[in-house]
Amino acid sequence: MSGPAAIDLNCDLGEGFGVWQLGDDEALLEVVSSANVACGFHAGDASTMRRVCGLAARCGVSVGAQVSYRDLAGFGRRFIDVDPGQLADEVLYQIGALEACARAAGTRVGYVKPHGALYNATVRHAAQAGAVVDGTRAFGLLPVLGLPGSELLAAAERAGLEPVAEAFADRGYTPAGTLVPRTEPNAMLHRAEDVTARALRLACEGEIVAVDGSVLRSPARSLCLHGDTPGAVELARAVRRELAAVGVGVTPFVPPGRCG
Amino acid sequence: MSGPAAIDLNCDLGEGFGVWQLGDDEALLEVVSSANVACGFHAGDASTMRRVCGLAARCGVSVGAQVSYRDLAGFGRRFIDVDPGQLADEVLYQIGALEACARAAGTRVGYVKPHGALYNATVRHAAQAGAVVDGTRAFGLLPVLGLPGSELLAAAERAGLEPVAEAFADRGYTPAGTLVPRTEPNAMLHRAEDVTARALRLACEGEIVAVDGSVLRSPARSLCLHGDTPGAVELARAVRRELAAVGVGVTPFVPPGRCG
Amino acid sequence: MSGPAAIDLNCDLGEGFGVWQLGDDEALLEVVSSANVACGFHAGDASTMRRVCGLAARCGVSVGAQVSYRDLAGFGRRFIDVDPGQLADEVLYQIGALEACARAAGTRVGYVKPHGALYNATVRHAAQAGAVVDGTRAFGLLPVLGLPGSELLAAAERAGLEPVAEAFADRGYTPAGTLVPRTEPNAMLHRAEDVTARALRLACEGEIVAVDGSVLRSPARSLCLHGDTPGAVELARAVRRELAAVGVGVTPFVPPGRCG
Amino acid sequence: MSGPAAIDLNCDLGEGFGVWQLGDDEALLEVVSSANVACGFHAGDASTMRRVCGLAARCGVSVGAQVSYRDLAGFGRRFIDVDPGQLADEVLYQIGALEACARAAGTRVGYVKPHGALYNATVRHAAQAGAVVDGTRAFGLLPVLGLPGSELLAAAERAGLEPVAEAFADRGYTPAGTLVPRTEPNAMLHRAEDVTARALRLACEGEIVAVDGSVLRSPARSLCLHGDTPGAVELARAVRRELAAVGVGVTPFVPPGRCG
Repeated sequence: MSGPAAIDLNCDLGEGFGVWQLGDDEALLEVVSSANVACGFHAGDASTMRRVCGLAARCGVSVGAQVSYRDLAGFGRRFIDVDPGQLADEVLYQIGALEACARAAGTRVGYVKPHGALYNATVRHAAQAGAVVDGTRAFGLLPVLGLPGSELLAAAERAGLEPVAEAFADRGYTPAGTLVPRTEPNAMLHRAEDVTARALRLACEGEIVAVDGSVLRSPARSLCLHGDTPGAVELARAVRRELAAVGVGVTPFVPPGRCG
Repeated sequence: MSGPAAIDLNCDLGEGFGVWQLGDDEALLEVVSSANVACGFHAGDASTMRRVCGLAARCGVSVGAQVSYRDLAGFGRRFIDVDPGQLADEVLYQIGALEACARAAGTRVGYVKPHGALYNATVRHAAQAGAVVDGTRAFGLLPVLGLPGSELLAAAERAGLEPVAEAFADRGYTPAGTLVPRTEPNAMLHRAEDVTARALRLACEGEIVAVDGSVLRSPARSLCLHGDTPGAVELARAVRRELAAVGVGVTPFVPPGRCG
Repeated sequence: MSGPAAIDLNCDLGEGFGVWQLGDDEALLEVVSSANVACGFHAGDASTMRRVCGLAARCGVSVGAQVSYRDLAGFGRRFIDVDPGQLADEVLYQIGALEACARAAGTRVGYVKPHGALYNATVRHAAQAGAVVDGTRAFGLLPVLGLPGSELLAAAERAGLEPVAEAFADRGYTPAGTLVPRTEPNAMLHRAEDVTARALRLACEGEIVAVDGSVLRSPARSLCLHGDTPGAVELARAVRRELAAVGVGVTPFVPPGRCG
Repeated sequence: MSGPAAIDLNCDLGEGFGVWQLGDDEALLEVVSSANVACGFHAGDASTMRRVCGLAARCGVSVGAQVSYRDLAGFGRRFIDVDPGQLADEVLYQIGALEACARAAGTRVGYVKPHGALYNATVRHAAQAGAVVDGTRAFGLLPVLGLPGSELLAAAERAGLEPVAEAFADRGYTPAGTLVPRTEPNAMLHRAEDVTARALRLACEGEIVAVDGSVLRSPARSLCLHGDTPGAVELARAVRRELAAVGVGVTPFVPPGRCG
């Protein structure tokens, strides 16, 4: 094997709101190395944010700001044609709110990852990609986690922020390296062995196997696990177990913050 | 004259939301020395927060976090029986969001002042007063601005935060030192000369004249001007002018933050 | 047995919001006869409201407007000292919104029941009780479902609206007929047999057995089942089964609306 | 003159929210014949809605539901890629909420007009246009007010709803009959005489003069006045005065509802 001895596993966390819960934050924080914590715009109230940051701190998990459009009713899953200047300010606001929660919990915000429709938009929408980077840079020189080849990562690099590429643990890839659209049959990997094989191949070889069997080089340093699909926790644990079994470490791409 | 050579003038600012405006932030920032900036829970969107912080930085005005119940529809003017632990987290969230906006604008959050119904509640409601202090302390050792004799200032002092007392420029005081209820005739000072006399007397002598003419000692280090009443800007300017005319400086009780 | 041949079972439904779910609406609609449908202020988006109304229509279940304070973040569980005039208007707004959803789904809003903290407040808070009744009456002459002896039901009666008393299936009653506070040991009935016994006794004898064994007369025409506690669906089904076994019908206190 | 003896004037009203005001509802209700009342999704709280409906009822002004994306922070001015089924439900919800307020105020909702970005989207976005029509039709057979040639009016017609075309009092038209983009110099008519000439020509001749002087036939039965631009009230009054001076009546395209 020629690959790295370690990979990062990231997952969206803290996506409840008030009385409503989503996913099993506690269980997933024992598996992943980077937690994309919702900041209150698509999900996540202040108490959830502080609590999840505290759990992350105890687990040695890095905290990222999962910034979003302001859209609780739509869970941030609808494109909003928001003015880029305003979007940058809203990104700044969200990172700042999470940073306060993180510091109070003994950690820091270590990176930024856009959520949902904003993630999808910033793959191609240069103005919104630039806005996310502007808002991040106004906060500080944080790494930005996103899709390889995206406008977002290109804008981050131009702005002097570290771009960090990720791959998806449970999505099908086309031979061209793009995600198979969710409307098509091979969009999702449903079997645990396929997901763990994806993780191992990526961690050890830096490769992803596309739906036609062709092998793609991937710059991904982090693998995104979904936290809210059925069986998510079991699947995440299986991935972690298989990685451990072959001696691949699970390590955050940016070390967890320390505070206080 | 035996009094201090200077006093702080504070005012609520940044209380628009999206398309809606309230008060004249630019004009008032040329008059006051401390800006209580809304943090998005009762008013204030991210762009307004960043813009007002930038104006404050340019004017040498200190920025305070005007924390509130989560209540845009009621402008934070209704008591909400929120759980103290959750309230503390929401205070922390708001300060953090404003701090990010302030730092990006070249300044820092220098103090905390509760808004509206939360301000009123924390005069007597020990649990909510404690929650505001807990949330503030979780952020950092910031001074807390409030009513003399309030639970809020007592809790701040116990927690090691500097309590800063304020007086109101345009409210009638009873001989006992409490505010005349708004339902009574003498609740408000309407004439500019009464307001400026209040400011001068407080700044120079540390005294407030009650509605019956009796003279009260006041520990107030800051005088609160209202920004959203008719003629607010003219009144604020008159106060500042009269103070200048007798050589009383207008100086923030906590120096404006510097950043970057 | 001297009691009625039938009782109403009511339950809070449609209390998800966007991506977040709460309770099992489908299952509970096969058990209850009256659905208290959330109207968007503490929970319930437009699509959920319309869908739940459609299910209710198909199940022959009456639809009630579960009106609330405007408080998604707190799920309507915190008292808000809202102005009564404004509260009345918000009640009117919520009923109207639900009525449109109900009519589109082939049914109508048949009654009104306040939710959470508003329910609790209107037991003693005469101004807010009056506001709920005013808002309801501005919509139309709908029955109001609430606690026996409450200000709410008294205000409804004075205003010419039918007051309908309810009892709780799973709460302990003091010998004085009030609910045992949730902080005390006997606050909840946890065993299915106790809950079904409560339902049977109330339906057949019009009586409730208090925690000390004393027997209370109850004017309740409806029994409130909780939908979001663990095992809620099974418990509700057990109640329904036991009622059926002794020939007690489950019938809404107001017949389901018809539309279109 | 060959034209009609009357025209409708419509205007957006009730667009404050809580403490925030926008435009002068009272003054404009004395000028227009149709009030597009905000329904709480981009602006408009329940008390404002009820109050504006009451004023409209007293003035003989028809009430329309000014339905919007759910976006208070953006005032409904940003396109949101919301699912059409959900959008239809939200339209239904908004109309229902306004209908309750209108009925309580002695009137009824007489028509529907989308607001802001939803108005713009439904000119070409067939799915969202269809959603607005579906939501309206689920409520009842109300006329839909919109841009001539839009997908919205086409969808309304197909669904059996009366499509009502409007023109803009203060916008420049291209020779092709489209609006001059706001980024171009002739986008707005700034002079009162141009606006009143537009109103007279449309009312009397059914014609609009484009920016190059060419004359366009217009199917518009209603003229949209802006309520929140500087001098809006004076301009609206001038239009009404000029129409009266030549004997052109100002009459709603759908008669004001009666209730109670």
